[in-house]
Amino acid sequence: MHTPGPFLQSVREQGPLVHNITNFVAMNVMANVLLAVGASPAMVHAREEVAEFAGLAQALTVNIGTADATWGAAMQDAAEVLSRNGRPWVFDPVGVAATAFRQGLSARLLDLRPSVVRGNASEILTLAGLRGSARGVDAGDSVEAAQDAARELAARTGGIVAVSGPSDFITDGQRAARVGNGHPMMSRITVMGCSLNGVIAAFCVGQPVFDATVAALAAYGVAGEEAGRSASGPGSFMPAFLDALYTQTPAALDTAARIEVVA
Amino acid sequence: MHTPGPFLQSVREQGPLVHNITNFVAMNVMANVLLAVGASPAMVHAREEVAEFAGLAQALTVNIGTADATWGAAMQDAAEVLSRNGRPWVFDPVGVAATAFRQGLSARLLDLRPSVVRGNASEILTLAGLRGSARGVDAGDSVEAAQDAARELAARTGGIVAVSGPSDFITDGQRAARVGNGHPMMSRITVMGCSLNGVIAAFCVGQPVFDATVAALAAYGVAGEEAGRSASGPGSFMPAFLDALYTQTPAALDTAARIEVVA
Amino acid sequence: MHTPGPFLQSVREQGPLVHNITNFVAMNVMANVLLAVGASPAMVHAREEVAEFAGLAQALTVNIGTADATWGAAMQDAAEVLSRNGRPWVFDPVGVAATAFRQGLSARLLDLRPSVVRGNASEILTLAGLRGSARGVDAGDSVEAAQDAARELAARTGGIVAVSGPSDFITDGQRAARVGNGHPMMSRITVMGCSLNGVIAAFCVGQPVFDATVAALAAYGVAGEEAGRSASGPGSFMPAFLDALYTQTPAALDTAARIEVVA
Repeated sequence: MHTPGPFLQSVREQGPLVHNITNFVAMNVMANVLLAVGASPAMVHAREEVAEFAGLAQALTVNIGTADATWGAAMQDAAEVLSRNGRPWVFDPVGVAATAFRQGLSARLLDLRPSVVRGNASEILTLAGLRGSARGVDAGDSVEAAQDAARELAARTGGIVAVSGPSDFITDGQRAARVGNGHPMMSRITVMGCSLNGVIAAFCVGQPVFDATVAALAAYGVAGEEAGRSASGPGSFMPAFLDALYTQTPAALDTAARIEVVA
Repeated sequence: MHTPGPFLQSVREQGPLVHNITNFVAMNVMANVLLAVGASPAMVHAREEVAEFAGLAQALTVNIGTADATWGAAMQDAAEVLSRNGRPWVFDPVGVAATAFRQGLSARLLDLRPSVVRGNASEILTLAGLRGSARGVDAGDSVEAAQDAARELAARTGGIVAVSGPSDFITDGQRAARVGNGHPMMSRITVMGCSLNGVIAAFCVGQPVFDATVAALAAYGVAGEEAGRSASGPGSFMPAFLDALYTQTPAALDTAARIEVVA
Repeated sequence: MHTPGPFLQSVREQGPLVHNITNFVAMNVMANVLLAVGASPAMVHAREEVAEFAGLAQALTVNIGTADATWGAAMQDAAEVLSRNGRPWVFDPVGVAATAFRQGLSARLLDLRPSVVRGNASEILTLAGLRGSARGVDAGDSVEAAQDAARELAARTGGIVAVSGPSDFITDGQRAARVGNGHPMMSRITVMGCSLNGVIAAFCVGQPVFDATVAALAAYGVAGEEAGRSASGPGSFMPAFLDALYTQTPAALDTAARIEVVA
């Protein structure tokens, strides 16, 4: 894993159909983020059709941010289809520390062995059974504090775990990498993490999942850095970020990526 | 039908109340699009109140993008009220090729004879009973390939069918027109089609539906062209598009519209 | 109540967790507005968890814009928790004149004694049992016409009532104030009122509610004025508004606020 550019190139060429069962806050921005990187997004959650639609999808994201029991069941329906079809799916345990309902639903989704679990440090610590200091949906713990929990969780699911933060940490339980790209403004805008799930899913289509996840985090962070250079606040950051994702080239991504392999 | 400007003028003067039962992805952008053209949008779907609210509405839009059985029933409740009141309503069969649930719901809504059906070529082909090549929610077919299907569908519903694409095609089964306005960036931003439904509905209030639909497509496409002149990507396109809709004048619309009557 | 700046300062220092049960149209913008002022937003509505989550919240907002019976029950669950914990919650009776369902739900929520009721003039008149001229969700009445109704409603709930408009009116039944800040473009963009509820809730945390509500309205209006100076339409207004909220300083707020105590 040295150059993330070819993963971006692959998304642009394939335009993969990414099925998302995400929270109400994220849907619009996430769809625009996926379009900007070159994927084809669809938001489908109704139990009347979710499994049928999942059969068409090349990748799936599941996000429990505003889930209830019915949506939770739809998430399980869809995840089972992707797992059975050998296609990648990404799980985001938003705010899992906050309620028993989120913990129960997350446990059921983990049992379905997501290809990638992505969350902030507090969420990963909670999932791994350790006690995070989350309050609401924002992280109260450092990425460093969650590294062991991430490795343990990855070993349990057999997939990848990515911890988002100022410096991201990605592991498959054995290997690990850090991605140093990003911009502080990304934490002052809602659903930046949720939308990233879609980019990870798109990058994973037809690619090795660990490398694709690292590449997706780098592409996202590099776009954030570019947006941060022109933005004067969170309002002007968001349009600049979508423009940066849209105009990002594989070569520019390779140049700007700061990926570090961890021993 | 030569000049779309008076239709825009009429919306600005009346500020029609447009009731929308649309998908979660589209709601915010669609409301802002309707406000920008001078209409008064309301998003109301609960069965506890949807028929009562529909009785107040001057026009309605129905979009199945994230519908489930409950929302589908609400759509039928509302459409029946508008049909009974002789008021226009627009149906958008988002992703109808993808699942049996969407096909069943769409068939029930078509039976209620929408004033306007608007979709991409693949959706119109699917509705007409032909086999489109849609995958997910994006069009895989050309507008040209859907023209006969559009005429057939319009003859069946007794209303207007509009096929969106690089050049839009509008027909009432007999007459037909093409609108050449628009910008390629409009297909790289989510819910641009969904939001257009609202503009069509607003333009149809108190106006002949075929002419109003053509005018709405022209106004929307002209605003897209103006936004495209200043945008550097999909992020900067969206604010520029809302500004262009808001500042569009009937006279400027008449000058920029490219409407062609089809034999 | 002379200077709103310290209330903004308090939000920035505390970063209060604000729980929101709001409509689908507002969720994304409202979360970004809360982040811009320095609060930590969470959108949580599922009955499976809403009371548990409400127990963590420092403030709550409830907005009936797209509610149904299930969401209405969740609103009551959450409001009861905040009331029991002595923490502030804000109620927004969106479009209450439109349907019997909204009136019934609003009556039940009023019985739970919201700390602040915020609405446009037509909504406040309807809540107070007088007949407003609302149509859909936009105000058809002037703020001045709703002042007596606001005082009466505040006396009944024991809380604050705020009437939004060109000049806002705030009362606790005895005292009253007007806030003259704002920009006409704010009424041409959706969910500006809904998002304001969140700012009021954040400002109320640990502060006297009447003064905090006045300060929140001033901060919001001042940011609107700043955005209006650079915007060329509603599209460019929104990013500029978020930037203005984010960069607003307590000192600049004190200078720009136009707060008038009413006899």
